[in-house]
Amino acid sequence: MGFEVYYRTFTCGELGPDYVGQQATLAGWVNRRRDHGGLIFLDIRDRYGITQVVCDPERSPESHRVAAELRSEYVVQVSGKVVMRLPGTENPHLSTGAIEIAADQLVILNPSRTTPFPISNDSTPVDESLRLKYRYLDLRRPKMRDNMILRHRVVKLIRDYLDEQGFLEIETPILMKSTPEGARDYLVPSRIYSGEFYALPQSPQQLKQLLMVAGLDRYFQIARCFRDEDQRADRQPEFTQLDLEMSFVSEDDVMSLIEGLVISLIEKTTNKRIKELSFPRLSYKHVMDRYGTDHPDLRFDLPLVEITDLAGAGNFGVFKNALAAQGMVKGIRVPGAGGYSRKEVEELTEFARMLGAKGLVSLAIQASGEVKSPLTKFMAGQGVQAIIDRLEGKPGDLLLFVADSAKVCNDVLFRLRVKLAERLKLIDQNELALCWVVDFPLLHYDEEAQRYDAEHNPFSGMDEEHISRLDSDPLNVRAKQYDIICNGYEIGGGSVRINVAALQHKVFSLMNMDDEQIKEQFGHMLEAFEYGAPPHGGIALGIDRFIMLLADEESIRDVIAFPKTQSAMDLLMNAPSPVDDKQLRELHLQIRPEERR
Amino acid sequence: MGFEVYYRTFTCGELGPDYVGQQATLAGWVNRRRDHGGLIFLDIRDRYGITQVVCDPERSPESHRVAAELRSEYVVQVSGKVVMRLPGTENPHLSTGAIEIAADQLVILNPSRTTPFPISNDSTPVDESLRLKYRYLDLRRPKMRDNMILRHRVVKLIRDYLDEQGFLEIETPILMKSTPEGARDYLVPSRIYSGEFYALPQSPQQLKQLLMVAGLDRYFQIARCFRDEDQRADRQPEFTQLDLEMSFVSEDDVMSLIEGLVISLIEKTTNKRIKELSFPRLSYKHVMDRYGTDHPDLRFDLPLVEITDLAGAGNFGVFKNALAAQGMVKGIRVPGAGGYSRKEVEELTEFARMLGAKGLVSLAIQASGEVKSPLTKFMAGQGVQAIIDRLEGKPGDLLLFVADSAKVCNDVLFRLRVKLAERLKLIDQNELALCWVVDFPLLHYDEEAQRYDAEHNPFSGMDEEHISRLDSDPLNVRAKQYDIICNGYEIGGGSVRINVAALQHKVFSLMNMDDEQIKEQFGHMLEAFEYGAPPHGGIALGIDRFIMLLADEESIRDVIAFPKTQSAMDLLMNAPSPVDDKQLRELHLQIRPEERR
Repeated sequence: MGFEVYYRTFTCGELGPDYVGQQATLAGWVNRRRDHGGLIFLDIRDRYGITQVVCDPERSPESHRVAAELRSEYVVQVSGKVVMRLPGTENPHLSTGAIEIAADQLVILNPSRTTPFPISNDSTPVDESLRLKYRYLDLRRPKMRDNMILRHRVVKLIRDYLDEQGFLEIETPILMKSTPEGARDYLVPSRIYSGEFYALPQSPQQLKQLLMVAGLDRYFQIARCFRDEDQRADRQPEFTQLDLEMSFVSEDDVMSLIEGLVISLIEKTTNKRIKELSFPRLSYKHVMDRYGTDHPDLRFDLPLVEITDLAGAGNFGVFKNALAAQGMVKGIRVPGAGGYSRKEVEELTEFARMLGAKGLVSLAIQASGEVKSPLTKFMAGQGVQAIIDRLEGKPGDLLLFVADSAKVCNDVLFRLRVKLAERLKLIDQNELALCWVVDFPLLHYDEEAQRYDAEHNPFSGMDEEHISRLDSDPLNVRAKQYDIICNGYEIGGGSVRINVAALQHKVFSLMNMDDEQIKEQFGHMLEAFEYGAPPHGGIALGIDRFIMLLADEESIRDVIAFPKTQSAMDLLMNAPSPVDDKQLRELHLQIRPEERR
Repeated sequence: MGFEVYYRTFTCGELGPDYVGQQATLAGWVNRRRDHGGLIFLDIRDRYGITQVVCDPERSPESHRVAAELRSEYVVQVSGKVVMRLPGTENPHLSTGAIEIAADQLVILNPSRTTPFPISNDSTPVDESLRLKYRYLDLRRPKMRDNMILRHRVVKLIRDYLDEQGFLEIETPILMKSTPEGARDYLVPSRIYSGEFYALPQSPQQLKQLLMVAGLDRYFQIARCFRDEDQRADRQPEFTQLDLEMSFVSEDDVMSLIEGLVISLIEKTTNKRIKELSFPRLSYKHVMDRYGTDHPDLRFDLPLVEITDLAGAGNFGVFKNALAAQGMVKGIRVPGAGGYSRKEVEELTEFARMLGAKGLVSLAIQASGEVKSPLTKFMAGQGVQAIIDRLEGKPGDLLLFVADSAKVCNDVLFRLRVKLAERLKLIDQNELALCWVVDFPLLHYDEEAQRYDAEHNPFSGMDEEHISRLDSDPLNVRAKQYDIICNGYEIGGGSVRINVAALQHKVFSLMNMDDEQIKEQFGHMLEAFEYGAPPHGGIALGIDRFIMLLADEESIRDVIAFPKTQSAMDLLMNAPSPVDDKQLRELHLQIRPEERR
């Protein structure tokens, strides 16, 4: 059984001056070839680095002959002697930059066609659909390779950390039960049970809670989750989360654990600076007031300031109308922007309109202290000054206001705040600003469906002293819920859960489920809670998003090996695709006649 | 934000004599309650152990009152002082058996109904469907809890080992493309692309090869795989494999790596003995000849011996008929079984018939040397003796023969061999006998489909010197394939792959695929091979099966947290289940009218 074949004795990233004089065999891809002074220089690349090879016709005519045939991305094997480069030709950017291989033997292991985009230089912009179709080439590019390595390291560190803390990683099924609650499920038809379906899990929420009922105490999983949603923004049909649950804990236990984990991950895998090592814990009300969102970017301040109480002082129609409609007036101070041109202010106004505002009210405080604003015609100086004072406006500042419903004010100013920070260059790209948002309401009222709905998920627990409010004042029940935010992205969220069947039933009832529906969909959970369910809580962290932030990427697709397009298509494998009618028949299905192609 | 609640200061597994005199708070389940001499003794259980609590009405009347209410599986919190147990009442079976807690405070955190089966005593046999319906209770039982812990440890050790060896764990998609090759796919209808489907992966085979083309060099994944097959034997619709691929390797590199991994896992997680630390590498032909199977149990010898060439010597009809049909005669020596009663031999014969044999020919060598066999009437003594000699029969032995097609002979004798080993008590339950099977044929001929088919998968490479045989003698092309066997189970298999487009195309052609089909199904692979595909190979190990062997379980369901039944049903969640017609409409599907319920 003679299958001892040795392709290499070293990788392309490990040779240096210490190895000079040794024979080495490398295998890898031709990153670059240069012909110079009768010699051929090859940069051979693998995952670990790049090593320069010199093919000298006097040393090995055969190697030189083979080298002359080589083109980029050919796979080669080369043997030769490690030698120092000539003084002045070292490459300080390469770990192997002091040495080169004097080739004695060179073999083409596999040729390559010309790649559809360059591999060695990944600053060239490439159309994303081309990158996805040829993902196996895209992943050769240094940045993508580094993203895959970073992802491996982060996930490995998560596992190490949680293992040390006594957590068990437990796999939960992918073939699950469909629950009409929440987002849309991906369904999987059953062949054995005609007309019945499995669903892919949106998260292992119920099973991780059942693992706590099972007494397993500390569970986690790097879990694949699925949502068949329209892929607005930067979403994927399947995504990965760190899913975690603990027994006999309060909110503080879960938050402390995660804080330690996240800090450790950042410190071990990046050079980024964490703004506050003890993550601020901010109430939902505070962040909605101050930032207009429950996932604020805290790398910069630029707070929003409500002036609803001051806005009725004069006779300014824009403000008056908002007040008449039970609305809100809210502003933001843009430091040093008092001198923005009319065009610049108009651009910002256009941006606000795109986001749904009717417009922006501007107030520029000139260096002289003079105020320029449409407001001054309709409001006495004292009223205007009260507003300026409230926003702490100083000479040279620009104040911008939105008058509308609270929702529109917040939605618009939240995004305007970020846009202004970019414009004012207030954002340090090397900083990570993390915080917790807590004190969420348990429920909100869904006007469309005419019922209460869980703010996060129906399993979240609530403050004990608020339980009685479920009947009297359900919108003012505070949940034991916490979200973790990084640079304006919600990277995770969790809660201490309900573990009492009657209370869980009550929450489902508030969501307008009748007893029949509750039993059909969640009967197993309610039953489990009757067999000694311990107090428990947990969290889920979005792995793709978190790694995107660590890798300084703009899209989660750049940290996923084989992502789908925004329209859920796999361009490499060409999925989804039609299937045989035989397959459909076995599944007791047919395409609806009007849609059959 | 007052959410600092401390449920416990210790787990139920950590207190011992060193802690005597300290106050401790524990939380857990009531494992057992005993009332004795006016005191109430509680065994409180969590994942980590059991601690005894004594409720003395003189020390804490309230705790004693609460304790009197307690029943099994109530969740409680208890505070008290760690004290030594009275001499003579220590429990050496518990790590905490020297101490107990003198209760000062006892709180019921959650009561429990009477469980449908006992938790604290897991030797009670329980109907499996009941266990699966109440899996959250089944997992509380000590053996199941230990299986989950073992599984976590094994998988963590795999990751640690491969990380140290430079492997990257890379996630591949679950929403893939359907390929009619191989087993039946689970399909997932697309909402966006009417009439099109994703498929759940049977393995990440193609993507891991593409990761090698991407230059990532060493990949692994603990990968979920799916097969919609009838669940004969001990299979699950979804299962987990260690999926692994390496670049620039020969068969030996992969096998050595896996051998090191498997030995390390066994040594770190069990007390089992590995029969041979350097796993024997046996050829496919050798194991088929000697054991009648390509996954032999090597904990015992009991070889099969072919006597086809000797079987025609006399005029024994059973042998003659097999020979006339181009069949085989093969036997096994059962040491010391020469004195088996007619009834015992008849039982073995019945067993062979169940497996498809027409019968068994027996030959008993009595202590005296006298031979008792139907054979003696039809074959000269010399002929009989030649057969006895071939099997190395000794006085006191029983020889058993099957005369049939090679397939039937092997299928029957393979299982008969295992049954005999059990009967003769030749199997050491504490031993793990591992081996590699190599030198597989690349292809076999599928009589039913009238075409060649890959013995393992169509991506397996072949001996370079055999490539030309693809045209002349395809059945004699040797694959670069290796299977790893443990105690008669195939726990893994892999190969060095094809990395040349033309050769891969040739193999698909031999499997009767036309150019159109090849392009449609595997075009992306063939194209990838044209862009510098390195030599590569890998393996997949069945995690469920391997952990089952380590845990001494009989079924993989006992090492999976939430398995499905043999008929692919989830009894806990009740999946699969019917879905709303709205969901089906969104997927452009309807149930076939004749099947609609």
